[in-house]
Amino acid sequence: MNAESENPDTEINEYMRGLGRAARAAGRELAASDGGARNAALYAIAARLRGEREALRTANEVDLAAGRANGLDAALLDRLTLSDARIESMATGLEQIAALPDPVGAVGHLDPMPSGIRVGRMRVPLGVVGIIYESRPNVTADAAALCLKSGNACVLRGGSEALHSNRAIADCIAAGLAEAGLPETAVQVVGTTDRAAVGALITLDAFIDVLVPRGGKGLIERIMRDATVPMIKHLHGVCHCFVDADADPDMAEQVVINAKTQRYGTCNTLETLLVDAGIAPTLLPRLKAAFDGHGVELRGCELSRAIVDGMTAAQAEDWDAEYLAPILSVAVVDGIDAAINHIDRHSSRHTEAIVTNHYARAQRFLREVDSSSVMVNASTRFADGFEYGLGAEIGISTDKLHARGPVGLEGLTTQKYIVLGDGHIRG
Amino acid sequence: MNAESENPDTEINEYMRGLGRAARAAGRELAASDGGARNAALYAIAARLRGEREALRTANEVDLAAGRANGLDAALLDRLTLSDARIESMATGLEQIAALPDPVGAVGHLDPMPSGIRVGRMRVPLGVVGIIYESRPNVTADAAALCLKSGNACVLRGGSEALHSNRAIADCIAAGLAEAGLPETAVQVVGTTDRAAVGALITLDAFIDVLVPRGGKGLIERIMRDATVPMIKHLHGVCHCFVDADADPDMAEQVVINAKTQRYGTCNTLETLLVDAGIAPTLLPRLKAAFDGHGVELRGCELSRAIVDGMTAAQAEDWDAEYLAPILSVAVVDGIDAAINHIDRHSSRHTEAIVTNHYARAQRFLREVDSSSVMVNASTRFADGFEYGLGAEIGISTDKLHARGPVGLEGLTTQKYIVLGDGHIRG
Repeated sequence: MNAESENPDTEINEYMRGLGRAARAAGRELAASDGGARNAALYAIAARLRGEREALRTANEVDLAAGRANGLDAALLDRLTLSDARIESMATGLEQIAALPDPVGAVGHLDPMPSGIRVGRMRVPLGVVGIIYESRPNVTADAAALCLKSGNACVLRGGSEALHSNRAIADCIAAGLAEAGLPETAVQVVGTTDRAAVGALITLDAFIDVLVPRGGKGLIERIMRDATVPMIKHLHGVCHCFVDADADPDMAEQVVINAKTQRYGTCNTLETLLVDAGIAPTLLPRLKAAFDGHGVELRGCELSRAIVDGMTAAQAEDWDAEYLAPILSVAVVDGIDAAINHIDRHSSRHTEAIVTNHYARAQRFLREVDSSSVMVNASTRFADGFEYGLGAEIGISTDKLHARGPVGLEGLTTQKYIVLGDGHIRG
Repeated sequence: MNAESENPDTEINEYMRGLGRAARAAGRELAASDGGARNAALYAIAARLRGEREALRTANEVDLAAGRANGLDAALLDRLTLSDARIESMATGLEQIAALPDPVGAVGHLDPMPSGIRVGRMRVPLGVVGIIYESRPNVTADAAALCLKSGNACVLRGGSEALHSNRAIADCIAAGLAEAGLPETAVQVVGTTDRAAVGALITLDAFIDVLVPRGGKGLIERIMRDATVPMIKHLHGVCHCFVDADADPDMAEQVVINAKTQRYGTCNTLETLLVDAGIAPTLLPRLKAAFDGHGVELRGCELSRAIVDGMTAAQAEDWDAEYLAPILSVAVVDGIDAAINHIDRHSSRHTEAIVTNHYARAQRFLREVDSSSVMVNASTRFADGFEYGLGAEIGISTDKLHARGPVGLEGLTTQKYIVLGDGHIRG
């Protein structure tokens, strides 16, 4: 960017329009390309990443030095680091994505109509995907690979603190694309730390078909407010588990402890436990003991605190909290209707589970709970593209339109109608 | 509305929030209802419409009288009219929608994963659908039926000039819902002509899951600008037909004439004809003669005007025009690449067709043209939910996300993941 510009906003907009225009043109070429060529590019990029390990680490060291100088905390510096193991893991990830079935071009069925035409739907790329993410540079390779595999061009805007690392990865991507005979412009990495680039990207509706923001709630809310490009987004995860009166107590303990403690910082971690009043007196004391062993603070409703000592009193805001920490809110509820009502009021519609051996209540929960994943007798931690067999995951959508729940390659495609005739006309 | 209110905007917002809240609650009941109950409601509403024919015509006469007094033109008055035949057609339409397969509850497959959980996707209603439409009161019954069949509640905002007719239809709908034991509030007809109601409806994201605007480009553009609720929308149709060098001339004439002249005012009507330079000298003269017979004005590029006399000179804006009239723009192009490039620049991505007997070019056109419907040797007029076997159509989407092309009941649903375990936890 030219620092002498009189109107930097216009300049950044022009820069971003340039990236978008080039991505749009490359997207048309990609959409017409064979899956074999796109796989060849992914393997070539993986080889480049391995071959350019030194260059990647050198570029990454520039980012790390700046990060240390700017006082980034240890966790952020760790996420920013490209170790040899992480470079190898990026390369392996690309090869795994290459090995997945081609999501593009399939026609499920072609049905004859009374008029004589045959009608089907062909799965095709969306076109150009815009991805906005934060500090981890490995997302650059991962997101580019998912877009390429699904036949999409992309514009990637990573965290400012990872700019040199992202550029070095982008060089490997461009070289791999060229080696496979695909346009280098199919993956555009935004090469400026100017924050106005995000504002420009999310309003580039002429050139970008969908945005996939990957980041915290603050980033997503900002994009929701300002974007004119449609989005596949994940806002937050306030996940519930309801332990029904007819649950097996051992299973309930196992599932609930896993859902809360297997990892604290993920969107599919349990945040609120609902326990049927019929099982609460036997179940809550043992759960309290088990959670104590994990150092998890329980914040209980009045009924649960009357059953077990040592819970903090839950406040109104606890029922809507995404703690991402060793804290769990606990409510005793009067049956499945009360549980579903509580979930309907407080859930972020991400993932909810029931633990029960009661057939009809399991079916009701599956049918009536309006969340992207609904589970019976399984930990909420399973809500994940890899666990669901998608082979890859661009994110988890808490929206209802287009893609809901874990989003794999299919979410980066759309279907168009194809009609085959033999000179058919409408009467 | 209370005319004495000091702040009518707040009041209309409150009124609309009330409709939204009631629809949201009814939507939860509908989502839990059986398909049989929803079908019973549709049959009961059809019976009510037939039984209340006199009341419907009386209410409609109030709208017609006001329309005549306000100087509505003949075409608009005709669209507003509820004749006995139209009432019968509404009732029959409801019965046809009831007879379609239930789009709710299906689980395509349930796949075992390496962890032991079984994962599937269940088709479920979106929740609450907001529909904004113009003068035709029969849309009230039609839209309500599509929403009910797919398990959604809805908020319907029809044209102000049809308010009394829409209210009378709404009474029949409420009575039919009650008869089937479903909540009368599942179909909310906006009972005010206040124009601020539209602005309130399109920003009710807490209560409305998707908007389906049905109307002209002006209405859609206004909603695109201001809506915070996501939309399934149809902007406009600039449809192309490319006659390839290897087309059968008889078939080309038949398809092109049908695509342009079978109806002039529909979104899938042909607006631009592209003719390969190799066939233009033989084809254009006979097409000109045929179009003359239909009174269609041809606006040609220089090359086409050099071949045939009597074409108007096309201006730059003709290549982007949706005429909806007996006018067709005509360009001679140099091969399929030039045709696809022209379409890429000027199409509204609605429907495009190729006429050819060349296998590879037919395949390229199907694959590379990025429109919601792409056809080989068939009239663009087939781009229609009924012709595609959807059984019903809520609209045609020119968007790529969620629903693309003709939208039937499936477009009013989403899929959630369901996970069945037996106490499974993540390791």
